[in-house]
Amino acid sequence: MEEEAAVLVVNAHGVPVEVPVLTGDLSVDSIRRELAGRVSDRTAALYVSTPSNPTGRLLCRELLEGIAEFARAHHLWIWSDEVYEDYAYTDRHVSIGEIAPERTLSVFSFSKAYGLAGYRCGYLAGPSAVMAAARRAATYVWSSAPTPSQLIAVRALCEGGEWVARARQSYREVGDRAADRLGVTRPDGGTFLFVDVGHRLDGRGLIGFLEDCLEDNLILTPGTSFGADYPTSVRLCFTCAAPEVVLRGVDRLATRIGARSRADDDR
Amino acid sequence: MEEEAAVLVVNAHGVPVEVPVLTGDLSVDSIRRELAGRVSDRTAALYVSTPSNPTGRLLCRELLEGIAEFARAHHLWIWSDEVYEDYAYTDRHVSIGEIAPERTLSVFSFSKAYGLAGYRCGYLAGPSAVMAAARRAATYVWSSAPTPSQLIAVRALCEGGEWVARARQSYREVGDRAADRLGVTRPDGGTFLFVDVGHRLDGRGLIGFLEDCLEDNLILTPGTSFGADYPTSVRLCFTCAAPEVVLRGVDRLATRIGARSRADDDR
Repeated sequence: MEEEAAVLVVNAHGVPVEVPVLTGDLSVDSIRRELAGRVSDRTAALYVSTPSNPTGRLLCRELLEGIAEFARAHHLWIWSDEVYEDYAYTDRHVSIGEIAPERTLSVFSFSKAYGLAGYRCGYLAGPSAVMAAARRAATYVWSSAPTPSQLIAVRALCEGGEWVARARQSYREVGDRAADRLGVTRPDGGTFLFVDVGHRLDGRGLIGFLEDCLEDNLILTPGTSFGADYPTSVRLCFTCAAPEVVLRGVDRLATRIGARSRADDDR
Repeated sequence: MEEEAAVLVVNAHGVPVEVPVLTGDLSVDSIRRELAGRVSDRTAALYVSTPSNPTGRLLCRELLEGIAEFARAHHLWIWSDEVYEDYAYTDRHVSIGEIAPERTLSVFSFSKAYGLAGYRCGYLAGPSAVMAAARRAATYVWSSAPTPSQLIAVRALCEGGEWVARARQSYREVGDRAADRLGVTRPDGGTFLFVDVGHRLDGRGLIGFLEDCLEDNLILTPGTSFGADYPTSVRLCFTCAAPEVVLRGVDRLATRIGARSRADDDR
């Protein structure tokens, strides 16, 4: 779970519990095991993100069915973060809301889909009783989505399909090239690579590494923003700038971590 | 305190405590007495609103100095709601932030000043250490004010003075005429009149009265939204529509409550 999401849970008087399933092999059994070790009778909801921020993974239907089954057995809501739904490259995006519609609240965003982050507009889909309550609560939290943002959002929905298709192609290409250069798995979706840089850390740890990167004009997110289990990883956003700029940055990072790129392997 | 503000306190894990000073005569002594009866060593802040929502009163410098002195004596922050600062009619608006800058957080809004509610943009002014913390917290709550709204806000600040001056004149005129028609005190500022309709309530109470008003296409806010001490009052917004529309509504309300207008008195 991203740090911002965890803070929202705390603000709502909840306790976020990390489930370290971002790295390593994922299976229904491994996810169920990790969840079972952490669920309690005070647990209210699971947070699921696909395409994943920060790993760029897609959760397939089988994994989502396993998560849905666990949620049903423990009477949990599911918070489904699907803001990157339009950016699935290797397979179709599957919403857990299709599998467990009775307990899933799916979050979507114009920020990610249409590159409109500055407009602060998104939407929520879920069971109608929950939506009615959410509308009431919204009055006291943000009143309404900004009017100009609602207008541009409608236009994006009506006319933005071609833009998204082009963005998807472009994001995928730069994601693949970045992954190849860094010698890591190509992203299934989303706009991030999650890279283990443990072999390059010195006594200053991850923060020291990130500070060194700043000298290369590289701004990366520490893995610890996604949970205590990722103290040697960094998140790289490959859509934060134009492809040629991103790839120049990727090149500097690859040099810094001594990455053996796929191009090298091919030689 | 408006219901929305009270809910924000609850959301921040606080307990809102009502201080019934909206109606009746106000003096430094009366305010200090009401505050002293409610302050505890768990009290964190006072909420002050001038020009007042819902009463349309201005708090004069003497009253604000009394409140500031109380806040200092009890080591309290002051939340100063000044979103109607541009709409002071009978006297200059005084910010308690001028009197107790070390402990005051003043809230301003483009929604009210420039009629830009749909843009969801405002600003906060306070001690620099608090502002630094507020900026950090904002990352986790609303990320940023919408970009288009920031652009229009800058333009409003640079070029909106004349618009505000005209709005002030227009608001004041319609507020005075509404007050005269309803036989209540003219507003010192803001966009509201707070009218006691107790003599017109039947067994259905305030909600029944408000439902009847809906038949006249009048939407009023129940006094109970501003605290349990106002069960027979309604808040009327005299800037919710064009002046002639508002005054038609005021006429219907006046008829419904059998108001004796100042014009009647003059006959």
